[in-house]
Amino acid sequence: MVVELISVGTELLLGNIVNTNAAYLSEKCAQLGLSLYYQTVVGDNEERLAETLKTAVDRSDVVILSGGLGPTKDDLTKEVTAKVLGRELMEDAHSKERIQAFFKNSQFKVITENNWKQALVPKDAIVVDNANGTAPGIIIEEGEKAVILLPGPPNELIPMFEHDIFPYLRNRQPEVIYSQMVKICGMGESMVETKIVDLIDSQTNPTVAPYAKIGEVHLRVTAKGETEEEARKLTKPLVKELKSRFEDYIYTTDEQVTLEEAVIKLLKKNDLTLTTAESCTGGMLSARLVNVPGVSDVFKQGLVTYSNRAKKKLLDVKKSTLKDHGAVSEQCAKEMAKGGVLSTGSDVCVAITGIAGPDGGTEDKPVGLVYISCYMKDKVTVRKFQFKGNREKIREYSVVNSLVLLRDCILANYK
Amino acid sequence: MVVELISVGTELLLGNIVNTNAAYLSEKCAQLGLSLYYQTVVGDNEERLAETLKTAVDRSDVVILSGGLGPTKDDLTKEVTAKVLGRELMEDAHSKERIQAFFKNSQFKVITENNWKQALVPKDAIVVDNANGTAPGIIIEEGEKAVILLPGPPNELIPMFEHDIFPYLRNRQPEVIYSQMVKICGMGESMVETKIVDLIDSQTNPTVAPYAKIGEVHLRVTAKGETEEEARKLTKPLVKELKSRFEDYIYTTDEQVTLEEAVIKLLKKNDLTLTTAESCTGGMLSARLVNVPGVSDVFKQGLVTYSNRAKKKLLDVKKSTLKDHGAVSEQCAKEMAKGGVLSTGSDVCVAITGIAGPDGGTEDKPVGLVYISCYMKDKVTVRKFQFKGNREKIREYSVVNSLVLLRDCILANYK
Repeated sequence: MVVELISVGTELLLGNIVNTNAAYLSEKCAQLGLSLYYQTVVGDNEERLAETLKTAVDRSDVVILSGGLGPTKDDLTKEVTAKVLGRELMEDAHSKERIQAFFKNSQFKVITENNWKQALVPKDAIVVDNANGTAPGIIIEEGEKAVILLPGPPNELIPMFEHDIFPYLRNRQPEVIYSQMVKICGMGESMVETKIVDLIDSQTNPTVAPYAKIGEVHLRVTAKGETEEEARKLTKPLVKELKSRFEDYIYTTDEQVTLEEAVIKLLKKNDLTLTTAESCTGGMLSARLVNVPGVSDVFKQGLVTYSNRAKKKLLDVKKSTLKDHGAVSEQCAKEMAKGGVLSTGSDVCVAITGIAGPDGGTEDKPVGLVYISCYMKDKVTVRKFQFKGNREKIREYSVVNSLVLLRDCILANYK
Repeated sequence: MVVELISVGTELLLGNIVNTNAAYLSEKCAQLGLSLYYQTVVGDNEERLAETLKTAVDRSDVVILSGGLGPTKDDLTKEVTAKVLGRELMEDAHSKERIQAFFKNSQFKVITENNWKQALVPKDAIVVDNANGTAPGIIIEEGEKAVILLPGPPNELIPMFEHDIFPYLRNRQPEVIYSQMVKICGMGESMVETKIVDLIDSQTNPTVAPYAKIGEVHLRVTAKGETEEEARKLTKPLVKELKSRFEDYIYTTDEQVTLEEAVIKLLKKNDLTLTTAESCTGGMLSARLVNVPGVSDVFKQGLVTYSNRAKKKLLDVKKSTLKDHGAVSEQCAKEMAKGGVLSTGSDVCVAITGIAGPDGGTEDKPVGLVYISCYMKDKVTVRKFQFKGNREKIREYSVVNSLVLLRDCILANYK
């Protein structure tokens, strides 16, 4: 089955935003075993969108459009699609109610007239609820073909795709695909690839594909079969081989589990409470931990000690340490982690101090120098990193590596 | 002048990587005042690439292809382009020498035979040196049209574009474009649109386009002219009109300035230091503030008080408040902000407490209920919100609205 993506939005053509939706949808289509030959980006322009859609419907079985479902005049995707497919737009009572309820619960109490445009759907279309916004998703079936309309904001598109579109596409696909994720942390992308190059070279069914994420590598093992059971069985020997090659670098084989979730699960399992002490990351680590529902069992508080004064006051870092070694030093990182445990009474503290740039670097301590420490059971472990990239990248790598260090320390103590 | 982008690479169609090249090239084209109507991604497939290129050359003046210039058999972009345009491939002596020198200086001392493929260029093409890799860039002029081939890796593509392609395109472009950003916070997208619908309806040159961001709306005013001065002049009356319509809702007219930057600038201007006290956002607000280089002048520390115990201990929230009103209440939000100022000695504290879900909601206090408070000059202001969406979205809206509240409080006190 051949699928094609059309992303609609002038903001993509102007380069205001990066097309992460296309990457997300492409990965999901690969996971479903669908053949994807084209992604197109087109602006909020009636004629060009119509032209693009016609070409896509002509050459592909399923066309997924994203974006352009908003309430403004710029948003044309639904109107153009209805026209191209020769369908009337009709008000969907259910969607109208949902939009009404959405506004009732939001801070914007006034529903302006243009919002009702979002309750219009093409005749005989399947309406898909949007749990995180007003615009519904729409599926239009045309004989053997289907056109799917999704909202542009990723926080609306992704949950909708997971919940409704993924199962819908799986049902349309004659072959059954089973895929198994193997998530790796603490090892670089090229090292991971080197370790599996023989597997990739010789693969047919199942296959393994690496996806580089920030500080992680995800390996997706995919097999095709006549039944899910058959496909699942085919993946097993390859997953087993990966487990023996990567051992503890694998933090989960569950698609849904994030690194922070895996780490929190480890803390819970060993009945440990955690404090964070952050300087250059400014709360990014604690914010990432708090992504995980139910984190309150193990994470009680975090300290963002951006200034030296805060490091002294909240974490009891010695004045002499700051004077002799500076705030970005092994010594300071050690004292921060220890101070975090002592001042809060938690079992573990992870601390981060570094130079995220763009200013503040010196020859001795260049931008990207980061110390990450973990205090646990009266022992402190420190790792020194020299990250490359801009301020944001340096901070993101710092956060991932603090999770990796925390995980390593728990595994070393509680295995 | 109409330009079109074609990104070549199966790794994009599998979602292995995000198409950041397209965003980069699009932004540059917008900056050059070029009209970009289509971006296409196509795999390393001869037939489909040829088809895509033909369509693009037909409808656009300049086609920029990126990727597929490597030494392997998969890399087809140059071969397909030469075929489509009816040009012979010939060895370019200069490129051959450059490749030889490149290998001499690299860690790979052996030049495998397939690398010489990269020294082949279409007849009469302009060869552009690649400072960071072996594949040269190529410009093929066909009458009034041009086809430009760029290497795929961003660290080769970007420097080559900046150094050679940007000036080349500027010289081909007769018109100059100027665009001015107007960024709005504290007002919903459809309300903003309603307020400017008459301007959008009647626009020709300049134009105004709204971009919805989380909790913000950005309006881009764009004009074309014969000189930059002329284009700039054309935007002025429209920008002035927007300023009079949105007044204090506009936090900046500088493309580069973010909401957190604008707020930090306001704090600096009024010589105020800030503390954050976060519960459900878990450090997202402080992490966002720390995005801004030089934030340390005003932001010294942040407290993530996820548990009730931390709220009592670090922020001096009364036990009776937590017992009688709960942690998600106006009273608790007030005490958190006041406690943040008193415990740290800063001038201002912004506090956030709410239910981000998915669990923890009740009939009285549903998921999405968030109180945000700001303590300044012995006075505390609280706003109550009922956000819709998943855990992440509720937290993102909480952070934006805490910045908006902080901004409003400073403006009210220091205007």
